[in-house]
Amino acid sequence: MSKTGIKVFAPASVGNMVVGFDIMGFALDRPGDEIIVRLSDQPGLRISQIYGAKGKIPKATNLNTAGVAAQKFLDHIGESDRGIEMEIWKKMPFASGLGSSAASAVAGVMAVNELLKRPLQKRELLPFALAGEQVASKALHGDNVAPSLLGGIIFIRNNEEMDVHRIPSPRGIYATVIHPKIEIKTAEARGVLSDTITMKQHILQSGNLGGLIIGLYNSDFDLIGRSLQDLIVEPQRSKLIPGFDSVQTSALNAGALGCSISGAGPSIVALSANSLIAENVGEAMTKVFHDMKIESELFISTINQEGAFKF
Amino acid sequence: MSKTGIKVFAPASVGNMVVGFDIMGFALDRPGDEIIVRLSDQPGLRISQIYGAKGKIPKATNLNTAGVAAQKFLDHIGESDRGIEMEIWKKMPFASGLGSSAASAVAGVMAVNELLKRPLQKRELLPFALAGEQVASKALHGDNVAPSLLGGIIFIRNNEEMDVHRIPSPRGIYATVIHPKIEIKTAEARGVLSDTITMKQHILQSGNLGGLIIGLYNSDFDLIGRSLQDLIVEPQRSKLIPGFDSVQTSALNAGALGCSISGAGPSIVALSANSLIAENVGEAMTKVFHDMKIESELFISTINQEGAFKF
Repeated sequence: MSKTGIKVFAPASVGNMVVGFDIMGFALDRPGDEIIVRLSDQPGLRISQIYGAKGKIPKATNLNTAGVAAQKFLDHIGESDRGIEMEIWKKMPFASGLGSSAASAVAGVMAVNELLKRPLQKRELLPFALAGEQVASKALHGDNVAPSLLGGIIFIRNNEEMDVHRIPSPRGIYATVIHPKIEIKTAEARGVLSDTITMKQHILQSGNLGGLIIGLYNSDFDLIGRSLQDLIVEPQRSKLIPGFDSVQTSALNAGALGCSISGAGPSIVALSANSLIAENVGEAMTKVFHDMKIESELFISTINQEGAFKF
Repeated sequence: MSKTGIKVFAPASVGNMVVGFDIMGFALDRPGDEIIVRLSDQPGLRISQIYGAKGKIPKATNLNTAGVAAQKFLDHIGESDRGIEMEIWKKMPFASGLGSSAASAVAGVMAVNELLKRPLQKRELLPFALAGEQVASKALHGDNVAPSLLGGIIFIRNNEEMDVHRIPSPRGIYATVIHPKIEIKTAEARGVLSDTITMKQHILQSGNLGGLIIGLYNSDFDLIGRSLQDLIVEPQRSKLIPGFDSVQTSALNAGALGCSISGAGPSIVALSANSLIAENVGEAMTKVFHDMKIESELFISTINQEGAFKF
């Protein structure tokens, strides 16, 4: 690639954050996607290469999350026909519940913004990344895109209004995420969800959501633990993930504060009060899938405070 | 009354706090109920007088919120037959949405605890006050009892577990509460509520609840204002309150951050960023009811940080 190329990394993220369906998520240190862009004499945005996707991701810019995000941004700044070549390096599993489409969308728009000498600030890139991710997930929710771009634990008051807020990450908190190598499409995972819930479920889940936020502000790990109980989505979706109950039990027995589905699954996330527990939790979760002869990969990470970056 | 008497004040409170149905509330400085207790030679708890209730509140200790709260506490500490006389001074409207039953229950149990030289700490009185309030409201929810006892803005993660947390009150925040003199019984107000809601309502309301909590932690008045929108309960209950829409509009036009039903109504609460706005809001709300020929009383208050106290 030419010397004028720009390379951006955007991290994986955990959507829903157990009790914040569509409105809460956090960024991991790794894995993540990388995107390289460079100026081209040929007008228009073009995806020249996609590595690591085994042909499963479309190269057409209007169907690709990174392409859509970048093009919406170019349209916004009045540079729709700017000649840009994009290389996508998928370095994380997709359809995994780790925010893979979001990471690509974020990396795509951020790389182009950097290439054009930052016409917008990082935070202003959010709506374009969101539009890109929507191509893959079919629903408007920023709980992967916002943490992947901005880092940290993100709460979204309203997705339409993109009313996005960062919540403090307690010192020491660690995530353990295990990805069993089975595929669930986000759109399919949404399909199993009932359109209605009871008031009682709403009240209990709201209690857990508020408890989680208060626990994060106060670094109250016990409260965080009591609050990490999803009474609405997990009971419906966990049946799509073989071994879910055993993995969850093994994580809690190993000392995790809580354990549930990461995003739309099949990845499973546990939160722990320190890295040692997070590693023990990872071993326990891995053993369950190993005994079931399901291949899995494990990620242990702090909560990434930086989000996407140029490197 | 004898010189050994103990007098306790417990303040009114705003339940639900707009978007935290059954799980969030705050205390007002005034109005409130007062209870006087003294030791008696006659065994057992007895309610000798109830002032200010126009005969509408039962004197039987097993039917009276203060009586039930105090008796449960006496049973717990092994003093079931202790001779105690109780005078209840209702100094606030009941069935008003201001937590009148909760205030009496709190004052009752706290007065007896003080009379017996504090066998329990203030916070430990919560379950007894809750049991007392349940006699009137028929449902288990501590969003009036907990703020009336403890003061401040209270979040309850789980009512069964009494998992109670205090959220910071931003400096300057003021409540304006107007009580139109019509009666709604809490149990009736619960009756109009649907047992189910849509997932979409749940997500939007959860966003507002989280936004409110984050706004309170960060003293972000704009975020508090955007979050004070109840999409679930207010649309169902507000039709029980004549003039509700006009009062709400007038409060918002006068500068309130938000305005909705206080508890189960008919009182209406507005929050404002300072006392001057809170007074303007109060004038605007009063005018609406005045023009409708509905008598009303107005309370303007900081968020009471002390809760119930002996005086």
